[in-house]
Amino acid sequence: MRWNLMATLCRPAIAVPEHIITAEQTLDLARSVHAGHPQLALALKLIENTGVRKRHIVQPIEQTLLHPGFQARNERYESEAKARVPEVVSRALDNASLEAHDIDLIIYVSCTGFMMPSMTAWLINTMGFRSDTRQMPISQLGCAAGGAAINRAHDFCTAYPEANVLIVACEFCSLCYQPTDLGVGSLLSNGLFGDAVAAAVVRGVGGTGIQLVRNGCHLVPDTEDWIAYSVRETGFHFLLDKRVPTTMEPLAPALHTLAGQHGWDASTLDFYIIHAGGPRILDDLCRFLNVEPEAFRFSRATLTEYGNIASAVVLDAVGRLFDEGGTADRAQGMIAGFGPGITAEIALGTWVTDPAEAEALDELDSLQETGTAGDLSMSPVI
Amino acid sequence: MRWNLMATLCRPAIAVPEHIITAEQTLDLARSVHAGHPQLALALKLIENTGVRKRHIVQPIEQTLLHPGFQARNERYESEAKARVPEVVSRALDNASLEAHDIDLIIYVSCTGFMMPSMTAWLINTMGFRSDTRQMPISQLGCAAGGAAINRAHDFCTAYPEANVLIVACEFCSLCYQPTDLGVGSLLSNGLFGDAVAAAVVRGVGGTGIQLVRNGCHLVPDTEDWIAYSVRETGFHFLLDKRVPTTMEPLAPALHTLAGQHGWDASTLDFYIIHAGGPRILDDLCRFLNVEPEAFRFSRATLTEYGNIASAVVLDAVGRLFDEGGTADRAQGMIAGFGPGITAEIALGTWVTDPAEAEALDELDSLQETGTAGDLSMSPVI
Repeated sequence: MRWNLMATLCRPAIAVPEHIITAEQTLDLARSVHAGHPQLALALKLIENTGVRKRHIVQPIEQTLLHPGFQARNERYESEAKARVPEVVSRALDNASLEAHDIDLIIYVSCTGFMMPSMTAWLINTMGFRSDTRQMPISQLGCAAGGAAINRAHDFCTAYPEANVLIVACEFCSLCYQPTDLGVGSLLSNGLFGDAVAAAVVRGVGGTGIQLVRNGCHLVPDTEDWIAYSVRETGFHFLLDKRVPTTMEPLAPALHTLAGQHGWDASTLDFYIIHAGGPRILDDLCRFLNVEPEAFRFSRATLTEYGNIASAVVLDAVGRLFDEGGTADRAQGMIAGFGPGITAEIALGTWVTDPAEAEALDELDSLQETGTAGDLSMSPVI
Repeated sequence: MRWNLMATLCRPAIAVPEHIITAEQTLDLARSVHAGHPQLALALKLIENTGVRKRHIVQPIEQTLLHPGFQARNERYESEAKARVPEVVSRALDNASLEAHDIDLIIYVSCTGFMMPSMTAWLINTMGFRSDTRQMPISQLGCAAGGAAINRAHDFCTAYPEANVLIVACEFCSLCYQPTDLGVGSLLSNGLFGDAVAAAVVRGVGGTGIQLVRNGCHLVPDTEDWIAYSVRETGFHFLLDKRVPTTMEPLAPALHTLAGQHGWDASTLDFYIIHAGGPRILDDLCRFLNVEPEAFRFSRATLTEYGNIASAVVLDAVGRLFDEGGTADRAQGMIAGFGPGITAEIALGTWVTDPAEAEALDELDSLQETGTAGDLSMSPVI
């Protein structure tokens, strides 16, 4: 059976930190911290336009605004990652009905802290993964790394059809806040990015979710300095060029091309999981793909509730598709992550329900019809 | 035909920088810089024991000893990489008889500088790679990344049998020199590591070289802090635990296991490409695999002539196998990279000569026998 032979992206698990900053607090903060900034009005307008209502961050805002040095920041990254990632990974494994020892490759993506050895080694040592688990830590693809992780997991399962891949996206953007960066792009970024941890399993065999059928990548020529890090004594400084919001015009054709290669039409798909870099990106891509704004509701919800959570966006948006109850079997969709390069990592997928789960659901339906379901509604397959 | 369907690691290209520091200069420098260091004698002895005769570095030694700050160091990394990588990549493509547009994935590994976007984007923009080339920049696997790159290239060609993968390992270890690190491990590292750029193509179809037949990975439990970076305002600080040289005892069984899974005996292979982390690692592994020291001659030559060039070691050692004229078709060998984690990335491969090249060589032989070869000795297939 076809479902049995192809990689399936299972239900992601997401966690956002407990400290919350609302849009109002963000704007108030910008007004007080940057009072007298010649472009404050523009920055406030740009932040308002993001539509971000709140963001979650790993430390209280007072502490977030301090810069204790790159070393302390990076140590904080490590301790927060070690405190927050395992629970999310456990849920992602549960969502895929797998155990740690079933995993053959861990892809860990994160651009907001740097560790060597990477978190992959720590996860293997502390969570019961096999000592022969492959490790793929990626730190230099920024927001595109979520899409890249899904695509490299797909490739790995294509090479080894019975393999299972764990993807982890851990982004603590608030630990890259740079108080001395005063350009409008920096002020906007300070009001846009949020923190989150996301994880998901790509199962080679079985699973309910998005069966990955094709992937591709596109680099927009000569845009390397549009989204970049400047690496300094004070850590990673995020540089955001004002041309970035115009990126969808050169990128949209790549989405059409990839869909076309598969005999699909990028404008008539059943679901879209798009990197929520900002509102303009979503609005423009809607237009260039000629789809209704509603089609991007998962990405818009992520942006509104969490801000731009970098490489974790696409996994969070996939999670929201699951929260809706998924979609019809064989529904066709697209996942697209965008990030520095400027790079797009694009995947095409088909919704699939694992026959084992479908059977359990059918059984439940018939039990409910006959009035004997009892507390089966607590069953994990629901 | 079997050769036609499997990934082949083609002849690598290597470049080392023009500035040379000899063993004598290294020892003299240690004596003068660390005069009065309580463990100077031990450090000198450890450095002498490495057997490193010279190393190549991107700047004159006087400049190398200065620390102009993390930002300046990282900018230097970027400018040196952009100046040195393209020529090596061009040679690697030539060695594989391919053009830039034939490449489907670029794996760029480096732990001695950090760029976002990564060098993969710059290479695509400047060297004529297709805009849909996949990018896999890896910075957190350290010295094991050379082996990891070969293995992920193998996986990719297994997924897409007609794909070609470019691997680049760019390591400027001298740009991570930390004058304030005074532990014996740091003094030893200062005398051990060298700079180099290496590149090679893994061809999905055709090619002469090591046909990759199986790969695997092993993490030695609870050794994360044996080889690690401390990330500070001053950049990456390399931490080398004194237990590292004992690593081969727990790692050797993983090499035996992988060979056994393929029906091979790790002790009786025809060639060995082993990470030249240091002399003890090579000596111990010789013993644990029960092979003659001569079997590790490629790795020993790399160590002697260039020092430990991190992720570039395995590619340089493969280059030395090619320099010997390669080996017999169907000869069986192993590639093993070791690095932080502690992680081993292991590959099994079989020497293969591309029939097209073999035919050309046969033709040349017959021409030479009949005395009509003329200047065919300049032919690129030789």
